[in-house]
Amino acid sequence: MAISPGTTLRELRERRPLVHQITNYVVMNETANATLALGALPVMAHALEEVEELAALAGALVLNIGTLSEHWVEAMVLAGKAATGPIVLDPVGAGATRYRTETAGRLLEELDIAVVRGNAAELARLAGREAEIRGVESIGAAESSADVARDAARAFGCVASVTGPTDYVSDGERVVAIHNGDELLATVTGTGCMSTAITGAFLAVKPTEPLEAAAEALATFGVAGEDAALEAKGPGTFHANLYDALYNLDPGSLDARTNVDE
Amino acid sequence: MAISPGTTLRELRERRPLVHQITNYVVMNETANATLALGALPVMAHALEEVEELAALAGALVLNIGTLSEHWVEAMVLAGKAATGPIVLDPVGAGATRYRTETAGRLLEELDIAVVRGNAAELARLAGREAEIRGVESIGAAESSADVARDAARAFGCVASVTGPTDYVSDGERVVAIHNGDELLATVTGTGCMSTAITGAFLAVKPTEPLEAAAEALATFGVAGEDAALEAKGPGTFHANLYDALYNLDPGSLDARTNVDE
Amino acid sequence: MAISPGTTLRELRERRPLVHQITNYVVMNETANATLALGALPVMAHALEEVEELAALAGALVLNIGTLSEHWVEAMVLAGKAATGPIVLDPVGAGATRYRTETAGRLLEELDIAVVRGNAAELARLAGREAEIRGVESIGAAESSADVARDAARAFGCVASVTGPTDYVSDGERVVAIHNGDELLATVTGTGCMSTAITGAFLAVKPTEPLEAAAEALATFGVAGEDAALEAKGPGTFHANLYDALYNLDPGSLDARTNVDE
Repeated sequence: MAISPGTTLRELRERRPLVHQITNYVVMNETANATLALGALPVMAHALEEVEELAALAGALVLNIGTLSEHWVEAMVLAGKAATGPIVLDPVGAGATRYRTETAGRLLEELDIAVVRGNAAELARLAGREAEIRGVESIGAAESSADVARDAARAFGCVASVTGPTDYVSDGERVVAIHNGDELLATVTGTGCMSTAITGAFLAVKPTEPLEAAAEALATFGVAGEDAALEAKGPGTFHANLYDALYNLDPGSLDARTNVDE
Repeated sequence: MAISPGTTLRELRERRPLVHQITNYVVMNETANATLALGALPVMAHALEEVEELAALAGALVLNIGTLSEHWVEAMVLAGKAATGPIVLDPVGAGATRYRTETAGRLLEELDIAVVRGNAAELARLAGREAEIRGVESIGAAESSADVARDAARAFGCVASVTGPTDYVSDGERVVAIHNGDELLATVTGTGCMSTAITGAFLAVKPTEPLEAAAEALATFGVAGEDAALEAKGPGTFHANLYDALYNLDPGSLDARTNVDE
Repeated sequence: MAISPGTTLRELRERRPLVHQITNYVVMNETANATLALGALPVMAHALEEVEELAALAGALVLNIGTLSEHWVEAMVLAGKAATGPIVLDPVGAGATRYRTETAGRLLEELDIAVVRGNAAELARLAGREAEIRGVESIGAAESSADVARDAARAFGCVASVTGPTDYVSDGERVVAIHNGDELLATVTGTGCMSTAITGAFLAVKPTEPLEAAAEALATFGVAGEDAALEAKGPGTFHANLYDALYNLDPGSLDARTNVDE
């Protein structure tokens, strides 16, 4: 196991992988900009007429159910079956409504998901555990986030990536803790969705090592969050600074700045 | 009658009410971020499969017809009938097309709307008065904005909240004038929609006093606009600063800073 | 032929033309804000029930296929047939999927398009030339961008506007090169779409001179990009500064700052 965000980021910027995203209306601009600032190429497309063609071309596919409806879910299934690269799922609000819980469950069952990235309440509820969720915010889970990550990974047979004050990524055996990040990340809508998009970009570079790619993505995004917070005066300036920080990340010093426990 | 934005904001931040928003594509990210920066929890959801479940859970429901289409209008009606908290309607562009005027009229008739928040031309046209509207911008109404607020409140049997250089909120009897705000608010798309979302958040805290809640929301947003303008160099930096300002609002000094005539 | 962005911008700010935009979800907020910061009035509407009414009122119609689907394409056709002002088409991702190529081709054939604005790969592929496209990014065309502009203009019988490090605008005979702009424009999603929206705003002022209007729009946007870059630290602050720069553009000095070869 080798977690080296700097090495992967350097390769990502050389290759500029295409990351196909079928995501929610609220954060579409934000995840596209985060992907682009990092150094990968986003493409947002949801029409049944074209998702298979794009998913087959892309280095990774990102599915996010934040503002789901039937046509979009159909498009996710079609794209997911046509994808040739790894798939990341962001089950936004799973546990908050039956429709979201069922849709997330269906995507996990019908598609070959490499990484599921959510907050502790979403993944706990999906894995059949107890947790409190208000809208799309995690209020708390009955078990620790590290346990949620391990349990969800086992339940779904994929890597589970649980973000929060400390992030936990697990393949069902190993659990990696990532301590990077900043409190201001929780004050901007869509930073979770951005971390999912960035997970997709890292997976495109490292498709056979989803645990490492997911952990590297969160560590990288966390370091960018720390940089963005330095001169931020609140959520608005932090949000603008976050794209600057992703763009200005130095692969050479990134590994030394990440705070990861394996 | 007690208008105290500071008291309500303090309570809002303690309770963190869930504000369910069925709104337009243009401002979805912006109203979610404004809601979050203020201290409440936004949830954006429009699927027929889940709007009733969320509307019943939420502290308030915000309906905005800025980019309406049939499925979305159906969702608004469903959600509105299931809502257990107060409903705010933003009739974006009413008067600009027959479809918008009719849809806004239908929502006002079929649902129990607590507050309708719009510009003078939108509310004047909805109330059957004359006004000039270009796209979604108010060019001018035949009567004063204070009269528009009173007339609209009487016509619809709810509180009417009319934003402009001076804002007016009325329940059909009393008219409250709010003098806070900054000219730059008119240079950013979606600041009207943000004021509607914030009205929803205040209503969630104060559901039985819609006149007070609506006035407090506009005073609070106006003060944030004044703070955001201080170091802004134009609409872009103002927009970023606006989230900072909402986040940094001090409940303790807010009442003293509001400029409200009852 | 008279290219004078300053003169046209001054007139635009006096008239405040309405620019009806049927565009993609990713950039809707961004193109509305760019239109507003420049001094025109955006209206975003896609419902079949209202697009004809708005298109007939608007000074210009902007069509953008960035996240297309069937209902939206139908709305574009309806609006395009009802439009009384000039139409600009942004064929985002043409060449990347069959659906986009065919839809862009259909819109060019069925509607009276005044200007088609895209990157070199999109317009080359639409004109039947070879080019490499990855998602929605141009990787390179077989011929020069100046040739792409001339060839596309001839193929479609309209003005072609090709943006890139240098922009080229052609009516099939003349080719105008615009050297304004900044590298950071390529790091923010939707800056191409913004240039299309601004082209629409300039066309609304100068509907009978599409070549001049398109060139003036790109020169104006390029100068704003240069201003925005001055204090930017990356894509995020550049993006915020870009609206400030559009808002603060001085019509009096604009002509002297544009770098245009006819």
